[in-house]
Amino acid sequence: MIVLGIDPGTAITGYGVVSTGPDGALAKSASDTPRLVAKSAHGAPRLIECGVIRTSPRAALASRLHDIFEGVTELIERHKPDALAVEDVFYARNVRTTVVLGHARGVILLAGARAGVTIHEYAPALIKKTVVGRGGATKEQVQFMVARLLRLKSAPQPADAADGVACALTCVMSAGTAMLRLRIAG
Amino acid sequence: MIVLGIDPGTAITGYGVVSTGPDGALAKSASDTPRLVAKSAHGAPRLIECGVIRTSPRAALASRLHDIFEGVTELIERHKPDALAVEDVFYARNVRTTVVLGHARGVILLAGARAGVTIHEYAPALIKKTVVGRGGATKEQVQFMVARLLRLKSAPQPADAADGVACALTCVMSAGTAMLRLRIAG
Repeated sequence: MIVLGIDPGTAITGYGVVSTGPDGALAKSASDTPRLVAKSAHGAPRLIECGVIRTSPRAALASRLHDIFEGVTELIERHKPDALAVEDVFYARNVRTTVVLGHARGVILLAGARAGVTIHEYAPALIKKTVVGRGGATKEQVQFMVARLLRLKSAPQPADAADGVACALTCVMSAGTAMLRLRIAG
Repeated sequence: MIVLGIDPGTAITGYGVVSTGPDGALAKSASDTPRLVAKSAHGAPRLIECGVIRTSPRAALASRLHDIFEGVTELIERHKPDALAVEDVFYARNVRTTVVLGHARGVILLAGARAGVTIHEYAPALIKKTVVGRGGATKEQVQFMVARLLRLKSAPQPADAADGVACALTCVMSAGTAMLRLRIAG
């Protein structure tokens, strides 16, 4: 199973591509159960790619939305994910900021719909709870746990990329969270 | 000059296509000045088409955004507008509603950017002030003035379609508002 996780933003959209499957194979069958993931180290979630889509602050909003749409569409075409996991809107104190973020999220959902990919949406607090264990976790804690869960030498940079990965992990782990936690703690 | 005006909405997106030009010709040259519009009755704004793009309330948000994007893209391809006039977000009391509206607006701006159309954005109050003369005008007043300005026998229905037309009219009139008003009043 391959999941493309997205943390929407008008200036910086973070993303992470995570796969699960026995021996690194990109299993897409029904046999790719949480049990299998938990039993095999090779079947544990693996990070395929992460990064950010940056847009120019001097460009018009429509042009920035175009860049985000093209960026996400390119990622979908290249990785052919089974699912798109998109972080829900963070309600900023400034309503205008939140609404502009809605614009970015709109074109990301559209990219998924146009490609016919299954879309999952997760609230920021749920992502933190799934990855760190606490809905109010800090950005640093998310980065730390993302690195730990994926056995990375260092945390993904910038934090937006880690947030994209965390969103993909939430999708992957939502089926077998308990078992994965057990293995990591052991 | 042809302008496609859009009143964004997740459930119902209103639109109106308005043209100006001497003798109904779709003038796109520099000679299509406000003076010309004001002088010639044939050059006054004409309604080419208006209507709404409806989406299913039972469909997922991504699917509804897809329908809106396809609908606006189809209108742009068919009418080849010189400009896309999009109403700015109405700040509802419910922040969630406003944010979802932002999603719809995002895919509309994207449709314009992908087609390479010039995009103009107008606040709801400015549209009302331009068409009715008062920023706090009612929906009925907007419908009445849209019909008056375009010499229609009845107001466009539903109100969302009239709002789309009003947005297109704001773009058309923003160059020669004063002269147009003079002619209508006379």
